[in-house]
Amino acid sequence: MSTDTAEPALKRQKKEEYVLYYWPGNPGRGEHIRLAFEYAGVPYTEFNDPGKLLSIITNAKEVGGTPHFAPPCLKLPSGTFLSQTPAILNHIAPKLGLAGNKEGADPEELRSLVNQLTLTALDLNNETHDTHHPIASEDYYEDQKEEAIKKAKNHRAKRLPKYLAHFQNVLESNPDGKDKGGTYLVGSTTTTADLVLFQVLDGTSYAFPKRYAALKKSGKYDNVFALKDRVAQEPGIKEYLASDRRRPYGMNVFRYYPELDGDK
Amino acid sequence: MSTDTAEPALKRQKKEEYVLYYWPGNPGRGEHIRLAFEYAGVPYTEFNDPGKLLSIITNAKEVGGTPHFAPPCLKLPSGTFLSQTPAILNHIAPKLGLAGNKEGADPEELRSLVNQLTLTALDLNNETHDTHHPIASEDYYEDQKEEAIKKAKNHRAKRLPKYLAHFQNVLESNPDGKDKGGTYLVGSTTTTADLVLFQVLDGTSYAFPKRYAALKKSGKYDNVFALKDRVAQEPGIKEYLASDRRRPYGMNVFRYYPELDGDK
Repeated sequence: MSTDTAEPALKRQKKEEYVLYYWPGNPGRGEHIRLAFEYAGVPYTEFNDPGKLLSIITNAKEVGGTPHFAPPCLKLPSGTFLSQTPAILNHIAPKLGLAGNKEGADPEELRSLVNQLTLTALDLNNETHDTHHPIASEDYYEDQKEEAIKKAKNHRAKRLPKYLAHFQNVLESNPDGKDKGGTYLVGSTTTTADLVLFQVLDGTSYAFPKRYAALKKSGKYDNVFALKDRVAQEPGIKEYLASDRRRPYGMNVFRYYPELDGDK
Repeated sequence: MSTDTAEPALKRQKKEEYVLYYWPGNPGRGEHIRLAFEYAGVPYTEFNDPGKLLSIITNAKEVGGTPHFAPPCLKLPSGTFLSQTPAILNHIAPKLGLAGNKEGADPEELRSLVNQLTLTALDLNNETHDTHHPIASEDYYEDQKEEAIKKAKNHRAKRLPKYLAHFQNVLESNPDGKDKGGTYLVGSTTTTADLVLFQVLDGTSYAFPKRYAALKKSGKYDNVFALKDRVAQEPGIKEYLASDRRRPYGMNVFRYYPELDGDK
C-alpha cells in the first residue's frame, strides 16, 4: 500500500458500533452509507443474513421501536435503528465530518445544504433505477422492457444531462473549492454530497457506458467528472475501491442492459 | 370562527421572514412546506412571479450561493436559499416544533426518525406523480397514457397498500400515541411526517377516489385514515384548509384521470 492511501491511525481507533442492514451481495443504496464510513475511516459491520433482513427491520419488536419500510437500515451506537438513505446520511454526516466545513457559515445551514445536494444526487440514483423498472418495481425487467427502453432514452437524452448541468453549475459557482480544482460541492472539504455523486456517476458509467463516454467527451461537465476522479483517489475511498469489500454491480440500482444504452 | 380553531395569539407574533419559492397556482410539493408553517402559525410569504422563479433559483448570483435544481425553494431568515422538500422540512422542523418530542429520547435521533418517516411519505408522493408520468416528466400525459395506465394499476394494487400497511404498522407500534387515538407517527405530538402523510392521503383521495374509498372501507388501515382526519382538524390546519390560501388540486403531483383510477 502506498503511503498516500494509508489512513491516519487515529481514524481506525474508534469503537466499532454501527451495523448496516442491507443486502450483502450488491452495492445498491447501501453503498452510499458504506462510502461515508469508508471515507471517514469509521468502522462498521454488516448484518449478513439476507433471509432475515426484512423480517427484522419491518418488525417493531425486533428493532425496539418504529418499524422500517425498506433497507438500507443503520443500527446506531445507541441501539436505535434508522432507515431511508438520506436520513441516515444526514444523521451521520456531522459525526463523520461530512456535513461541510466553511468559515463563517452557520453549521446547521451548511449541513442542510449538504443534505439538499445529497438528495438531488440520490434523485438521480432513483431515476436511474426507474429506467429498468418504469412500471412496477416488484416485477421483472423483462415484463417492462418496452417501457424501459422508452424511459432510458429520455433518461440519456434529458434527465442525465440536466442533472450533470446542475452539478457542474454548483461546482463552478463554489468559490471555496476553486483553488482545489473546483471538485467540491460545498466548501472545500468532502461531504456526503460528493460521495453520493461519485457513486451515482460510477454506477452510471457501468449502466450506460456509451452515454457516459459521450457526456464526458462533450467537455460540458468537466468539473463533475473531475469530482469523480478526485473522490476515487481520496484516502479511505481508494483503499476501499481496491478491496473485496467493494461489491460488483449486478441486479440492483445500476444494471447494464445493452438495449438501454446509446451514444445519445 | 369557533374557538377551538383559533390559534394562540403568541404564535402569530413572530417576525415574517421565510419566503417560499414555488409555483403559486397549485399545491404540489410546496404544499408540504406550507402545511408546516400553517400548523406552527409561523408567517411566511410566497414569491409570486412564476415567470422568474426558475431563472432566480437556478442562478448562483441571484441566490447568493449554491444554485438549485428545482422548486420548492425556501429563503431562510438568514437570506440563505434551501431547496429539496425533505431538506427544507428537516431544517425547519426543530424551529417549528415539528421534529418530535419524547421524554428521554435523544433529540437528534428523534429528528432523524421524523425525517425518515417524512421521506417515506414523500416517496409515496413521488410515486404518485410517476403514475401519470412514468416515462418522461417533461412530456405530456397524453404521450405516455398507455404506460400510465399500467403504472397506475400497479400503484393501486401494490404500492399504495404497501405504504398504507407500513404507516399502519408504525402507528400501531407507537406506544406514546395510543391514548390519543394512535394517530401520531412519532411520540404524541404532530411532526412533519404526520403533515406530509396527511397531504399525500388527501391528494390520493383526489387522484384515486375509487381506490381510496375501497382502501378506507377495508378496515386494514384505520389508524392511517384517523391520522388524516385528526390532522385536518388541528388548529392552524383546519383554518388553512378552509381558507383561499389552500389551492385546489390540478395539474401537478395529484391529478385526476378517471382511466387511472379503479376499485382495485
